[in-house]
Amino acid sequence: MKKPHVAILGVTGAVGQEFLTLLAERKFPMASLKLLASVRSAGKSVSFGGRDYVIEEATPDSFRGVDLVLSSAGSKISRQLSGAIVKAGALMVDNTSAFRMEPDVPLVVPEINAKDIRKHRGIIANPNCSTIIMLVPLWPLHRAGKIRRIVAATYQAASGAGAKAMQELEDQTRDVLAGRPARKEVFPHQIAFNLFSHNSAIKEDGYCEEEIKMMKETRKIFHDDKIRVVATTVRVPVYRAHSEALFIELSKKISVEKARRLLAKAPGVKLVDDREKNYFPMPIDASHHDDILTGRIREDKSTRNGLALFVSGDQIRKGAALNAIQIAECWMKG
Amino acid sequence: MKKPHVAILGVTGAVGQEFLTLLAERKFPMASLKLLASVRSAGKSVSFGGRDYVIEEATPDSFRGVDLVLSSAGSKISRQLSGAIVKAGALMVDNTSAFRMEPDVPLVVPEINAKDIRKHRGIIANPNCSTIIMLVPLWPLHRAGKIRRIVAATYQAASGAGAKAMQELEDQTRDVLAGRPARKEVFPHQIAFNLFSHNSAIKEDGYCEEEIKMMKETRKIFHDDKIRVVATTVRVPVYRAHSEALFIELSKKISVEKARRLLAKAPGVKLVDDREKNYFPMPIDASHHDDILTGRIREDKSTRNGLALFVSGDQIRKGAALNAIQIAECWMKG
Repeated sequence: MKKPHVAILGVTGAVGQEFLTLLAERKFPMASLKLLASVRSAGKSVSFGGRDYVIEEATPDSFRGVDLVLSSAGSKISRQLSGAIVKAGALMVDNTSAFRMEPDVPLVVPEINAKDIRKHRGIIANPNCSTIIMLVPLWPLHRAGKIRRIVAATYQAASGAGAKAMQELEDQTRDVLAGRPARKEVFPHQIAFNLFSHNSAIKEDGYCEEEIKMMKETRKIFHDDKIRVVATTVRVPVYRAHSEALFIELSKKISVEKARRLLAKAPGVKLVDDREKNYFPMPIDASHHDDILTGRIREDKSTRNGLALFVSGDQIRKGAALNAIQIAECWMKG
Repeated sequence: MKKPHVAILGVTGAVGQEFLTLLAERKFPMASLKLLASVRSAGKSVSFGGRDYVIEEATPDSFRGVDLVLSSAGSKISRQLSGAIVKAGALMVDNTSAFRMEPDVPLVVPEINAKDIRKHRGIIANPNCSTIIMLVPLWPLHRAGKIRRIVAATYQAASGAGAKAMQELEDQTRDVLAGRPARKEVFPHQIAFNLFSHNSAIKEDGYCEEEIKMMKETRKIFHDDKIRVVATTVRVPVYRAHSEALFIELSKKISVEKARRLLAKAPGVKLVDDREKNYFPMPIDASHHDDILTGRIREDKSTRNGLALFVSGDQIRKGAALNAIQIAECWMKG
């Protein structure tokens, strides 16, 4: 494929900024680059690869001549502009939840189901961050022993709610340390020195949207309608890496040693499982790294063929921007 | 029973200090009060109930004439002094892990197995904090539907590692905000804006001591050798309340409505389960409160007769000092 003309939609957000970092870091081949955001940011200048780019307002006319749109400007904007993007003949790799569960939109984690990319009809969806971080290390275990059930408890960073939420964590922490009340603007509850159930809408059965995404997206990505997932999702006072305690029940027993061997060679996974040094995945280690740190691998004797593990992955990177760019890279390879 | 002569062993620690707070708050009847600590703290003065008390060095001779010892000075000290305490005819309510699994030592959460207190032979053990916080809300569900399996992921406060660990969380947070490296003295890893697998020793099967305590102590407290428990225990940057994501599998189905009714009237539990306001248990709400906040009660459809919930409880209070004092109160009532 020829070098694509690329547009970033939502370039001023935390994920938009990470798109720029990663395009540079990975020397992503581009014929041109267009930076799009809301009218508020239009006209601002952004430096990239030794050149200055002026941010343009995203409108339906923005996509003429564009081949690839990396989009992370919220579900509403994605829905508003997807028609124009597809009509312009560009591929939209969308980081929002707008199209993830649409039957004709592939939902892709390249380490798992890169082949679904070929089925796209203009849009490929990037999964939810907690889903990606959970599934990259579970995939090699699923292939070897077919997972029947996943129990997940998450420890989610502020970054999942955007750059302003990360700033709120810092500001509130300073306030609390100074004896001032914590000002709440982004999150409904204090995040400094606290934690709370994920701040997405609660649905009728009591699960929040974040949990429902983990349940539904897993089935679509794994192409397994029978896999059962239950999750409790929690925000913790951490900046940008999500962690997850995972308990899985397999159809076939996998020993701890075998799980470790499979994970050690799995793409996108870094084994961090040093029992002697009590050294396991931590968000400060996962931050700004591509791999999902995976460890605390134990046999779970409380169930048949059970394994327990603990993972940590950069929410902005593999949980969002990196996964989208990897999708684009696979698409370009054809 | 006559008012007892009381001694606090380890009065300078976080739990020792909370003993004093609770004895005053609950107007605990005492004929006298003796404050004991290591030689380092001996001679220091502590104000209590409008009187000054001088801390004495804890030695085997400290317990003559004492009826009740509230002890939280570490397992080693408990082992060294238990003989002298029992010989002096006092009851030792011990907050350390020294005697918890001894067959002739009752392990008591008063809301659950207060009747075991009568079987004591001089020592009653206070369970591990994560175990207490997990079991108080699970007990009414266990009674109604017999829990077969518990899957627990914890979000544990710094306080579990003592007053110095709480200070380390504060100091490290100030350091990180100022761009300085985080100094590690108590915890093996940075706790500020980070989290890590619980810092207790890892045993052969990969579980840490904290997790093993939750598994073993549950069976003893519930008098149920068959209940299966798996846990992943994690330290988070929170001061003094532990939270836990719990997933239980019951012998008999309990609806969400029934679980909520049972928990609303359960002693030691406060229902915090407001789906409309997205308001659930949080450590800042649980701090300095007696009850275990319990919410996010959902049917877990990924298993038979499953329920999911989220709880938060003050680690120093119900997780340690309060539970010990409640044991003493039950013992006094006979």
